[in-house]
Amino acid sequence: MFRARVASGRRRTRSRLASMTVPADPDLALPDPATLDSADPLASFRQRFVIPDPSLVYLDGNSLGRPPLRAIERLARVATEEWAGELIRGWEHWLDEPRRVGDLLGTGLLGARPDEVAICDSTTVDFYRLASAALDARPDRRVIVTDRENFPTDRYVLEGLARDRDREIAWLTPDPVDGPSVGDVAAVLAAHPGDVALVTLTHVNYRSAAIADLSSITGLAHDSGALVLWDLSHSAGAVPVDLVANDVDLAVGCTYKYLNGGPGAPAYLYIRSDLQDALRNPIQGWFGQADQFEMGQGFRAMTGIGGWLTGTPGILGLAAAEEGIRVSVEAGIEAIRAKGIALTEYAIALHDAWLAPLGFTLGSPRDPARRGSHVSVRRADARLLTRSMIDAGVIPDFRAPDSIRLGLSPLTTSFDDVSRGIAILRGLARR
Amino acid sequence: MFRARVASGRRRTRSRLASMTVPADPDLALPDPATLDSADPLASFRQRFVIPDPSLVYLDGNSLGRPPLRAIERLARVATEEWAGELIRGWEHWLDEPRRVGDLLGTGLLGARPDEVAICDSTTVDFYRLASAALDARPDRRVIVTDRENFPTDRYVLEGLARDRDREIAWLTPDPVDGPSVGDVAAVLAAHPGDVALVTLTHVNYRSAAIADLSSITGLAHDSGALVLWDLSHSAGAVPVDLVANDVDLAVGCTYKYLNGGPGAPAYLYIRSDLQDALRNPIQGWFGQADQFEMGQGFRAMTGIGGWLTGTPGILGLAAAEEGIRVSVEAGIEAIRAKGIALTEYAIALHDAWLAPLGFTLGSPRDPARRGSHVSVRRADARLLTRSMIDAGVIPDFRAPDSIRLGLSPLTTSFDDVSRGIAILRGLARR
Repeated sequence: MFRARVASGRRRTRSRLASMTVPADPDLALPDPATLDSADPLASFRQRFVIPDPSLVYLDGNSLGRPPLRAIERLARVATEEWAGELIRGWEHWLDEPRRVGDLLGTGLLGARPDEVAICDSTTVDFYRLASAALDARPDRRVIVTDRENFPTDRYVLEGLARDRDREIAWLTPDPVDGPSVGDVAAVLAAHPGDVALVTLTHVNYRSAAIADLSSITGLAHDSGALVLWDLSHSAGAVPVDLVANDVDLAVGCTYKYLNGGPGAPAYLYIRSDLQDALRNPIQGWFGQADQFEMGQGFRAMTGIGGWLTGTPGILGLAAAEEGIRVSVEAGIEAIRAKGIALTEYAIALHDAWLAPLGFTLGSPRDPARRGSHVSVRRADARLLTRSMIDAGVIPDFRAPDSIRLGLSPLTTSFDDVSRGIAILRGLARR
Repeated sequence: MFRARVASGRRRTRSRLASMTVPADPDLALPDPATLDSADPLASFRQRFVIPDPSLVYLDGNSLGRPPLRAIERLARVATEEWAGELIRGWEHWLDEPRRVGDLLGTGLLGARPDEVAICDSTTVDFYRLASAALDARPDRRVIVTDRENFPTDRYVLEGLARDRDREIAWLTPDPVDGPSVGDVAAVLAAHPGDVALVTLTHVNYRSAAIADLSSITGLAHDSGALVLWDLSHSAGAVPVDLVANDVDLAVGCTYKYLNGGPGAPAYLYIRSDLQDALRNPIQGWFGQADQFEMGQGFRAMTGIGGWLTGTPGILGLAAAEEGIRVSVEAGIEAIRAKGIALTEYAIALHDAWLAPLGFTLGSPRDPARRGSHVSVRRADARLLTRSMIDAGVIPDFRAPDSIRLGLSPLTTSFDDVSRGIAILRGLARR
C-alpha cells in the first residue's frame, strides 16, 4: 500500500519542483508520518501495550518486544490466583500449557497443524535437541549445511554437535545483506551428494532481515535426502511462515521478539506430525514420559509432540508469552506483514533521503518480499552512533561490525517513531 | 529441640495416667500443636508468604512452595519497571542474574564458593548437560551408577545418555524407605573396578525423604576415579548441603520446592571451580560465549561458571526464584533444618499414634539425621485417600504405589497444619 503512495507523492513533488527550478528539498518527497499513522489499520494495537514513556523511540522490539497490558495482568493473576491460590493443583491446567500455547502460535501464526508446536526451554536448547535428533536420523551422512551469517547460538550449537558426533559443517558464506540463496544451497548439496544430514538456516536474518527462500531450500534439502531445520526467531509474528504448505521438517524460535512474550520468554519447537515419533529426543525428561506421574521404571516417550517436552516448564514465562502471542494472532499475520512492509519501506526511503548522503549504506534487501520487519543501516562508526542514539532517546540495536539495526515492530512501532528515530540519527551522524 | 520436649511430655503423661488406672488415651501423650507453634522461632516467616486461605492445610510445599510476598511484588516490578520501562536496556543487569542469584543460593544454602552455581534452564536440561559432560570426561569408563529409587527424570535422562553414548547403567536397588547405602555404592564400585565414569544419586529421596550419605559416597566415588553428580532438589532450603567441604564435583536441583521460586522456576547447576573449564558443556549457546555480543565466528566458552550458560534465561522466573531463595537465606539453613526435624518428628509421632493402628506404615526413615523435610505414610489405598484428603481441604501428594507424602515446609508449615492434616487423614482412613 505504502509503495504506491510514496511513488505518486514523489512524482507530484518532482513536477512541481521542476517548474519552480529551485534545488529539490528531498524531505518534500517523503510522506508525512502523521498521515501514515492515521491510515494505519493496526494503529490501535499500540494501546494494548504498556508504553510508559511515549517520547522514547523504541526501535528494538525485535530484540525485546514491549509488554502487552494483558501480559502484566495475567502475570499478576497467575501469581496471586494460581500460584498462591491453587498451589500444586495449578498443574491440572499448567500441564497442558506448553501444548495449548504451542497450538495458538503454530496454527495462528506459523501455518502448522494442531499438535505440531510446543513451547518449552530456550531456543538454544530446542535447537540442540532438534539438530541432534536430525543427525541421529541420518547416521550415515556426515555433513551439516548452515551459513556464516546465521545467528550465533545456532552456529555454536552446531559446532558442538559436529565435534561430539563426528560430523562436518559445510559453511555457506553468503552476501551479508542478501543472505544464502537457493543457488548457494544447491551448490553445497551438489558438492556432498548423498552426504548431507541436515540443512539448517534462519528464515529472517538477525542482522540484515534478508528472508531465505524457505520453500525452495526445503525442497532442495528434501530432494537430497536431508532434513531441514529452520530458525524462525525473527519471523514469528512478523512475516507469514507456512510450515505445512512447505513440508518443513523442523523449526524453532523465540517468543520475546515480535511475539512480545517478555525477557527470556520460553522458546517453541515445531516437529512435523509424522516425525514426532520417528525422531528421538536426546534429553528424555519426565515431562515427555507417558504416564508421567506413575514415575515408573524405563523411559517411554509420550506419543506426539508431548514426547518432546523435557523438564518442568516455567509457568510464569509461559503465561506472559501466551498473552504476547495472542495479541499477534488477533491482529492477524497478513495485516502485521503489510504494516511491516510499510514501516520498512518508509525507513528505507528515509535512509535514502537522509542517511545515504552522510555515508550510510543499506544493510537490508530493497525488495520488500525478501525483507523481514527490520532494517539495518551501515556505517563504520555504527557502534558509537548507537550509543549516542540511546543517549538521545532512540533505542536501536548495534550489530557487529557496522550495522545499526532498526527493529520495526508492527504492533507497537509508529511511522512517527521511524521518522523521529532516523531524524535523530541523521543529526548525530552529521556531527 | 522437639525430641526432648516430646519425650518429657510423654513421661509426664504416662505417670499421671498410671496413677489414674484408666485406659491410656494416646492423644494425651502428644504435644499440643499450639504450644509448638508458639515456641517456633521461624513462626513469623509464615507472614512473608501469600496465604489466601489459612484453613487449607497445605502439605505439598515440597512439590510447589508457596509464593513469598516479595516474589509477587518483584514480578510486578520486573514487568512494569524493567520490561516495560527499561526495555532492552534491562539486559544490562539481567545478564548477570543467573550468576548473581546462583551465588545467593550457592553461598547461602549449598556450601558452595562464589562463582560455582548458576541458575538456568530446567533441572532435566542441567542434569543432562552435567551428566553428559562427566561421561565425556571419562571416555574409557563404561558404567554409570544410579539407583532405581532415584527421581524419574534423572533415571530417564541417564537411560538416554547410556543409549546414545554406548554406556551401561549399574542400577542399585536400595530399600525404598532407607535409600542407597554407602555399602550399596561400595559394592557396585567394587564390581566394576576402574570402569565407573559417574556416580549420580539424589541427596534427599523424593518419596521417602531418605538422606543419602553425600560425604561418604562422594569419597568412595572419587577413590574409584569416578565423578559424582548430586540432585539436590529436595535438599536445597531444607537440609544443609556442604558441597565444598565434601569436595562434590557436580550438582543440580530445582528452585520451586523448599526454595519457593514459583511453578516451573528455573533450576541451578553447581560445578566445582576446578572443573568448570576442564569439562565441556554439550549445549554451547550464545550465553556461554566469551564476547557474546560480538557474535563472531567460532564458539569460545566464557571461562568459569559463565561458560555453562546456554540460551537466553527466563527473567520473570528468575526474579521470582531470587525472592524465594532470599527468604530461605534470611531464615538461615540451620534454623530451617531444626524446624524441619521438629515438624517431621511431630508428624511421625502422629503417624504412630493415629495412623499405625489403622494399618499405615511409615515410608520414611525414623532417624531424623537420615530424613529430609517430608514424611511418607503408606497404605495400599493411598491414591484414593489422597483424593479424599484434597476434597477435605488437606493437600499432600500421592507417590506411587502406596505413599501419601506429607511435605513439611519449614517456612510455611505450622505444627497446627500437621496436626489438622493428619487428623483429617485419620478420619478418612477409618471409614
